[in-house]
Amino acid sequence: MKAIVSNNQFSLDDGNQFSEIDIPQPEPGEGEILIKVETLSVNPVDTKLRQQPFSDEEKHRILGYDAVGTIEKIGNNVSTFKKGDRVFYSGAPSYAGANQQYQLMDVRLVAHAPQSLKPTEAAALPLTGLTAYETLFDTFNISENPQENRGKTLLIINGSGGVGSIATQIAKAYGLRVITTASRTETIEWSKQMGADLVLNHKNDLSDELKKHDLADVDYIFCTFNTDAYYEKMIELVKPHGKITTIVAFQDKQDLNLLKSKSVTFTHEFMFTRPLHQTEDMQKHQTYLQDIAQKVDDGVYHTTLNQTLNGLTTETLFKAHEILESHKMIGKLVIQVDEDSEN
Amino acid sequence: MKAIVSNNQFSLDDGNQFSEIDIPQPEPGEGEILIKVETLSVNPVDTKLRQQPFSDEEKHRILGYDAVGTIEKIGNNVSTFKKGDRVFYSGAPSYAGANQQYQLMDVRLVAHAPQSLKPTEAAALPLTGLTAYETLFDTFNISENPQENRGKTLLIINGSGGVGSIATQIAKAYGLRVITTASRTETIEWSKQMGADLVLNHKNDLSDELKKHDLADVDYIFCTFNTDAYYEKMIELVKPHGKITTIVAFQDKQDLNLLKSKSVTFTHEFMFTRPLHQTEDMQKHQTYLQDIAQKVDDGVYHTTLNQTLNGLTTETLFKAHEILESHKMIGKLVIQVDEDSEN
Repeated sequence: MKAIVSNNQFSLDDGNQFSEIDIPQPEPGEGEILIKVETLSVNPVDTKLRQQPFSDEEKHRILGYDAVGTIEKIGNNVSTFKKGDRVFYSGAPSYAGANQQYQLMDVRLVAHAPQSLKPTEAAALPLTGLTAYETLFDTFNISENPQENRGKTLLIINGSGGVGSIATQIAKAYGLRVITTASRTETIEWSKQMGADLVLNHKNDLSDELKKHDLADVDYIFCTFNTDAYYEKMIELVKPHGKITTIVAFQDKQDLNLLKSKSVTFTHEFMFTRPLHQTEDMQKHQTYLQDIAQKVDDGVYHTTLNQTLNGLTTETLFKAHEILESHKMIGKLVIQVDEDSEN
Repeated sequence: MKAIVSNNQFSLDDGNQFSEIDIPQPEPGEGEILIKVETLSVNPVDTKLRQQPFSDEEKHRILGYDAVGTIEKIGNNVSTFKKGDRVFYSGAPSYAGANQQYQLMDVRLVAHAPQSLKPTEAAALPLTGLTAYETLFDTFNISENPQENRGKTLLIINGSGGVGSIATQIAKAYGLRVITTASRTETIEWSKQMGADLVLNHKNDLSDELKKHDLADVDYIFCTFNTDAYYEKMIELVKPHGKITTIVAFQDKQDLNLLKSKSVTFTHEFMFTRPLHQTEDMQKHQTYLQDIAQKVDDGVYHTTLNQTLNGLTTETLFKAHEILESHKMIGKLVIQVDEDSEN
């Protein structure tokens, strides 16, 4: 079967170092399924992992942590899925990624795909959706009952990115007031479409921007862009006993004493924490994905898909990485594995 | 009335710079009460504030953020308390402290003192108790139902200190398993008396110490001593999606990326956050103090008092600061205002 791999770390300036190889189809073990990948999405995590040094054991690297596909084979002790089921999932660092024809996956990390979406539309959701669910429920500890979240405000730094786009919809569905940041006409418009109540211009001082709307501070801040640049400002904007979560690694060390005056809580969310550490509650990814699928089919959430590339080739994959690294991406980009399928 | 003040910042090496002055008794305003201070406790925050530079407006400084007293006068719109009621409270940075005969206080920050304790025993509890309640309920978000906290483990760095001593009791009462650190025979013994299930020797590597008890990690870590020294170790010891809170300011900047792999949550708790920022939920201090008083009278919590000094004088106050700065204090130290009262 076909797989797109890299054999060494590389930056885009090195040119396209992805290559296509033929590898044996893997067999699902206990608690695993083999999935025929139909559509996959490319995320910032792909571009970061592409540039990470290879370990000694690593022969080649198959990226891709967001996919929709149909189940081809079922391992032992898998009862909730059958052959032919269409599933969506982000995956785990311990498995080869989705940039291949067939992918193995731990069944606890997948859920049935939304029935009302095409695979391209559904593939935009798992990784960003899981990141947003973990941030809202595991780190902000918001209630599952939207009524209990009424009156609370969430600020999302970079509302029109992949994570910001779905986080806006989820937070709105669960009763929060959502304020995002953007500056270009098209990103402002997109963020409003995703449901943002207010969009602040991040080219201006965000305190001034908030004041324009008679707001002094917010309950929660979710940073999806340049944490170093926003660290002090976020602490200034959050309420006493407020919570800040980032998904973007720091470049520099920071002064944690700044958290003290307001007893601020800071979390570095990482969507792979559960599969990486094989936590007992790993199945939470399935639970969250089920809620996403249900709310999509109920018309509550909409896909964040904005761009589709056709055919899983070294060229489309390289192009996808180029687009992601431009930091201009609005919503999500997906690659349809077979050029001629009607996804 | 008598007040013990300082007129400039000073270190213990400068000698005793406290002085006794006579100032007018203040009048309670709207929502305030005037309290005749009977006993007060000295905390690390006193020694830190003593050394802070004076602001231009500051004539003299009256420290003391932990007290028991009886209500002398009631301001307007105070209905839940009456003259003669015995109350206990920590206070607020916007009020002069308890190192004086009569102290004004916002009524939302006080509660009726436990009936089963002497004033000296009760004065040991407010500041440390509030710090522990905020850490457990506002930052760790533990349940108010002990059954829901069963199976969760809290590690307290420095179990025999003032905060560690009461935090151990509160966490135990609310269903957590509590592990503390100590190294001297008397601190180990004290921490066990406070209810610690396990006491680790902090002179050894804490991972090794945990392993001796077949434990790899814990759900929550509460740091009450030298946060810089324990920062990396705490991240190593906490579970994925675990929570760490400190009450001790850092000396150095830290690498927040270390939080990422496990999606760790870090909070810098500060017990004065609510009164300092005049939050809408400031009355939570009263609610927490009421729970402390109730559980003391029910025999669930016991005083953490370990040492009493007689008479509020410049000498006793200086001595108290010396004892606190020795960092050898076990439990709590209080000062009985009138030498001859039977407290």
